[in-house]
Amino acid sequence: MKPFMNADFLLPDDCSQRLYHDYAAQMPIIDYHCHLPPADVAGNSCFRDLAHAWLGGDHYKWRAMRSNGVMEEDITGHPADYRTFLAWARTVPKLVGNPLYHWTHLELQRYFGIDLPLSEKTAPMIWEACNARLVTPEFGARSLLEKMKVKAIGTTDDPADSLEYHMAYGQARQPGQPVMVPSYRPDKALAVDDPVTWKAYLARLGAAADVSIGSYKELVAALQKRHDVFHALGCRASDHALVSPFAVFVSDQALGELFDKFIKGTVPSTEEAEAFKTALLLEIGRMNARRGWAMQLHMACVRNLNSPMFRKLGPDTGFDAVADRPIAEKLGLFLNALQVDNLLPKTILYSLNPNDLEVLGTVMGCFQDGSIPGKIQCGSAWWFNDHIEGMRRQMVSLANLGLLSRFVGMLTDSRSFLSFPRHEYFRRILCALVGGWMEAGEIPADFDTFGKMVQDISFNNAKDYFAIPGADD
Amino acid sequence: MKPFMNADFLLPDDCSQRLYHDYAAQMPIIDYHCHLPPADVAGNSCFRDLAHAWLGGDHYKWRAMRSNGVMEEDITGHPADYRTFLAWARTVPKLVGNPLYHWTHLELQRYFGIDLPLSEKTAPMIWEACNARLVTPEFGARSLLEKMKVKAIGTTDDPADSLEYHMAYGQARQPGQPVMVPSYRPDKALAVDDPVTWKAYLARLGAAADVSIGSYKELVAALQKRHDVFHALGCRASDHALVSPFAVFVSDQALGELFDKFIKGTVPSTEEAEAFKTALLLEIGRMNARRGWAMQLHMACVRNLNSPMFRKLGPDTGFDAVADRPIAEKLGLFLNALQVDNLLPKTILYSLNPNDLEVLGTVMGCFQDGSIPGKIQCGSAWWFNDHIEGMRRQMVSLANLGLLSRFVGMLTDSRSFLSFPRHEYFRRILCALVGGWMEAGEIPADFDTFGKMVQDISFNNAKDYFAIPGADD
Amino acid sequence: MKPFMNADFLLPDDCSQRLYHDYAAQMPIIDYHCHLPPADVAGNSCFRDLAHAWLGGDHYKWRAMRSNGVMEEDITGHPADYRTFLAWARTVPKLVGNPLYHWTHLELQRYFGIDLPLSEKTAPMIWEACNARLVTPEFGARSLLEKMKVKAIGTTDDPADSLEYHMAYGQARQPGQPVMVPSYRPDKALAVDDPVTWKAYLARLGAAADVSIGSYKELVAALQKRHDVFHALGCRASDHALVSPFAVFVSDQALGELFDKFIKGTVPSTEEAEAFKTALLLEIGRMNARRGWAMQLHMACVRNLNSPMFRKLGPDTGFDAVADRPIAEKLGLFLNALQVDNLLPKTILYSLNPNDLEVLGTVMGCFQDGSIPGKIQCGSAWWFNDHIEGMRRQMVSLANLGLLSRFVGMLTDSRSFLSFPRHEYFRRILCALVGGWMEAGEIPADFDTFGKMVQDISFNNAKDYFAIPGADD
Repeated sequence: MKPFMNADFLLPDDCSQRLYHDYAAQMPIIDYHCHLPPADVAGNSCFRDLAHAWLGGDHYKWRAMRSNGVMEEDITGHPADYRTFLAWARTVPKLVGNPLYHWTHLELQRYFGIDLPLSEKTAPMIWEACNARLVTPEFGARSLLEKMKVKAIGTTDDPADSLEYHMAYGQARQPGQPVMVPSYRPDKALAVDDPVTWKAYLARLGAAADVSIGSYKELVAALQKRHDVFHALGCRASDHALVSPFAVFVSDQALGELFDKFIKGTVPSTEEAEAFKTALLLEIGRMNARRGWAMQLHMACVRNLNSPMFRKLGPDTGFDAVADRPIAEKLGLFLNALQVDNLLPKTILYSLNPNDLEVLGTVMGCFQDGSIPGKIQCGSAWWFNDHIEGMRRQMVSLANLGLLSRFVGMLTDSRSFLSFPRHEYFRRILCALVGGWMEAGEIPADFDTFGKMVQDISFNNAKDYFAIPGADD
Repeated sequence: MKPFMNADFLLPDDCSQRLYHDYAAQMPIIDYHCHLPPADVAGNSCFRDLAHAWLGGDHYKWRAMRSNGVMEEDITGHPADYRTFLAWARTVPKLVGNPLYHWTHLELQRYFGIDLPLSEKTAPMIWEACNARLVTPEFGARSLLEKMKVKAIGTTDDPADSLEYHMAYGQARQPGQPVMVPSYRPDKALAVDDPVTWKAYLARLGAAADVSIGSYKELVAALQKRHDVFHALGCRASDHALVSPFAVFVSDQALGELFDKFIKGTVPSTEEAEAFKTALLLEIGRMNARRGWAMQLHMACVRNLNSPMFRKLGPDTGFDAVADRPIAEKLGLFLNALQVDNLLPKTILYSLNPNDLEVLGTVMGCFQDGSIPGKIQCGSAWWFNDHIEGMRRQMVSLANLGLLSRFVGMLTDSRSFLSFPRHEYFRRILCALVGGWMEAGEIPADFDTFGKMVQDISFNNAKDYFAIPGADD
Repeated sequence: MKPFMNADFLLPDDCSQRLYHDYAAQMPIIDYHCHLPPADVAGNSCFRDLAHAWLGGDHYKWRAMRSNGVMEEDITGHPADYRTFLAWARTVPKLVGNPLYHWTHLELQRYFGIDLPLSEKTAPMIWEACNARLVTPEFGARSLLEKMKVKAIGTTDDPADSLEYHMAYGQARQPGQPVMVPSYRPDKALAVDDPVTWKAYLARLGAAADVSIGSYKELVAALQKRHDVFHALGCRASDHALVSPFAVFVSDQALGELFDKFIKGTVPSTEEAEAFKTALLLEIGRMNARRGWAMQLHMACVRNLNSPMFRKLGPDTGFDAVADRPIAEKLGLFLNALQVDNLLPKTILYSLNPNDLEVLGTVMGCFQDGSIPGKIQCGSAWWFNDHIEGMRRQMVSLANLGLLSRFVGMLTDSRSFLSFPRHEYFRRILCALVGGWMEAGEIPADFDTFGKMVQDISFNNAKDYFAIPGADD
């Protein structure tokens, strides 16, 4: 029986241990897609206590607490405090088999040096020990990144955002400190299903871009201007949420007419909305291709299923789920529409539904063109799939259908500054996979080659693929 | 090499063996969803012979025999006899890798103390040995339940059923004997696709409820009256078969009009049928919520695909299959329609398609409200998934997306009194999973905590969740 | 740590090693579905060099090279030569985890006796060693089959094909040489979506059948005549590619009218096309049933997604992907439409989407009729699924839902004469699965029974199921 989460956690044999300890562990991190608040990085903000750090906004934990019978009042009913923390501490032992269980303990171990399992019993001790450290400057937001050898982060930003903190941080940044670049997420510009909200957004976007948006072409122009600004600040990726791919193609004239209709407040038909979104996403794809950016498509999430809770708490509070529409044919049509103009950018395909892995892995192969190794990527196991089985399944699928060696690897996708041990978690799973092949004689015992491979997947591939300015200092 | 199906069957290491033998094995059983005939329990009926016990109505075995080249004549062509049994005995060695292989041998071991693998060679000996015991009173239907420490069973019953055997058994039941409660399965009240059969059913339902059903409201009233009667007899769950979730919402007036149309024999459009079913299932959901019942949704089964065999043998004879329609969005809409009125009952989601596990596990999380731990459940691997990989996959998915600790666990879903070793099979797989985590250092070696956890999943959770009166004697 | 791909490759324990070495390894091969060029078999053609043998037409390898950043110019831009081979040799070490990695090294080991991993470094040596042998007569196409103990191959042929090489080879074949029979693949007769190409094809088919095709009935008659000719040449299987099953049923009169419409060049609606295809595929199903042939349905592939590359290179060049439409209900309806006439032939169901395995495995069970063991089959892991996990998943699913013992087993589906070690790969995975069950005590340690079972799945089942004349010499 192995001790609980020791140095060889998730590494069952010699080969995987050697690959992890001698090769993967030492690599820095590029967290190319996360939801960290730029202001906190710029200000090196400290957390008031462990309740704020862990439970202030983490809907993964909220969801687990609700499932465990904790009433909403004790979760989001008041600012996170010791009572919230205690409810969480009581929930953790019930979470065996869930990634939150391992994440929690990895965070206690790596940031705070605490090896005890969290439970109602250990809660008071852990509360005090962590809080004492959290308020010190070495637990400031930026310092936490440095502690984990983070070279660069890509935040998630609306084209209408001012990016003021990115600018400020960029100017103040000292050599050796992490780079922070924005990612371009124009979802709201596509959200014509609610024309009133959309129109209000266009006003905000127009103001940010200094463009009066009165037509489809002006909308594209505004998005392009912000794309340029994002690029100047080091942005090298866009990001898009879509329940299923868009592939309704209409003429430029029809697009103009749709714009006019929506701006007047007409709610579009499903077909009209998809036509508009197809066209606009193609525009952004082309912008990306011209600039050498990567386009990240996040598919198969249905959001805000619980309408009373949505009204109460808003989005991103734990009421989203995996969707299951067919995606293969439309995804192919969409990517091909960029390919025919030779303007298909680097693309990363994510689906929240792990059953889509075979579709992603094979559609992907149809658009590799030899220009860049691994040009089209199957993104790391996303959100609800970000666990041992999910990551393993994604990597085995990618290996079978494409080239695992060329994988750009892990991202946290997190709102929390304490989430970076997830990169370690990922690397251990990767090393267990490759090490297992070596143990079984399925690949040669060539540590030079495969040690390099796990280092590439841990860091080098992302560095080369995104080419974020300054990430390679 | 381990001996064939010995005491440590499916338990590969010390931790899993200890969890099973010291914790799980001793727990009694609540079989909250099965298809046992109430009359046999009430009468403690004996089986004539092993052919009747095993092959009289078990379409799992019939299917396997057909696949193995046994002609229908030797399967259902005459009452099950030695010839049928022999055809089965010849099929069993061909069934390696199929759960029927393990079930058959577990049943021989646990009920009859026979350790030999069944084959053509051992068939005569096994036939005689089993038959000699089957006719003794200790092999009566109720006695078989007691032998397996069954505390309660939930049969499957139509609202129009008289429940006479439940009443008789309830009155005659001695302390320590298993409780038998009905489950409420109103599928026929929703089956408007065939309005003639539906109308005939309404007459039967009306008679049972003493309500003349001439309108939608009277239909609901009749269902409510039977709901009350079922409740008085200890029923704490409803059960519903649906190929995919219903989510077409129409006004009360429209429902009344639809009722009038169908009762006159008009075959509904797909949309009309779904609107009617949506409304009626919501009504039952609300009845359940008010009474504290659980609602079991069994999704993704297409039935009676082989029309000549359906005409010959009727339903439940081995001609059903896994469906693959998208379900996520409609399931979310349906549950939300109950949530908005704050009348979402405890709910158990089953899909016959294991690819739906991620959808179920995440939709589920959107409707946990903290009122009851594990209020919304992902049901145990159902029917075609009730095998080692299927159960393991269901538990790993549930653990990753929710709380395995809160799982209400196994049910037989069976028509056979000899099926109860399936609970043992399930518990061994559960202990192998949790024990494996312990061996690998993924969880602490804390047998108190995790021994309790496997006991909860084996029995306590179902006891608390359903709160069947008398199940806790 | 096991040596790289040694004699016990993929065989982790004693039982699986014994099953493989003592039982499976010795069995000959029936490759009942492949794409080998009949002319090469008839002529015993030699390959000019390893580049031609490996890279002349293998779109699996092309795809991998594109993913690895090799430009099209170096892949298909000129006839395969040392430069192409070198690009491939550089790609291979990046392919760990991909079946191409193992296939490549199995081919080097089994055909050429080379144990070195292929890489840029070993490329020159391997190039010379292999080329020296490839030009010798023992590396002629037919000789390569004999080397692998191939008893029979089923090529893939259009009903309009002359089959001249099958005839010539059949007459010249010496006892002990492999049998070569055609398979009947009438996809082009169903391809009414492009009526112009379809009409041109009908002319070709009519010429081959000596029938003037001016009506639906004459089309069926022409197909029947070719079916007869194929049968006389030993054909025992048809093959059909369909993105999803067809199940739109119309009258004979409507079919006649559809034929008239399409022949005049009218592009059909989706519904019209499906009605026509349903009817024609049913006709072929009935022809198969009358002749005792097997019908192979290859589902869930979307082809030629990349339109610029399709225009440049044509079909089968590496631009196909997995589809994800629902298939269960239509597949059931289609098979039932043959069943009602008691003319459902032996049928093998393949889906490119591994998530369909549960649908296939259960729909299949609805149509087993006891006339032939394993009459309806779930085909071996196809194309993108032809890897360790894919094969294992297919076999575990088949075992759980049907009878693994009755499985007709592996086929190469390949265009390459060097692909036959894939049968060995399959057998090793099969033996690891069954041997693993034995080691764990899940089945008895009965090598007679289970050794026979792996031999059946390796060879005997396919021999009996297809009954290809001469395959059993």
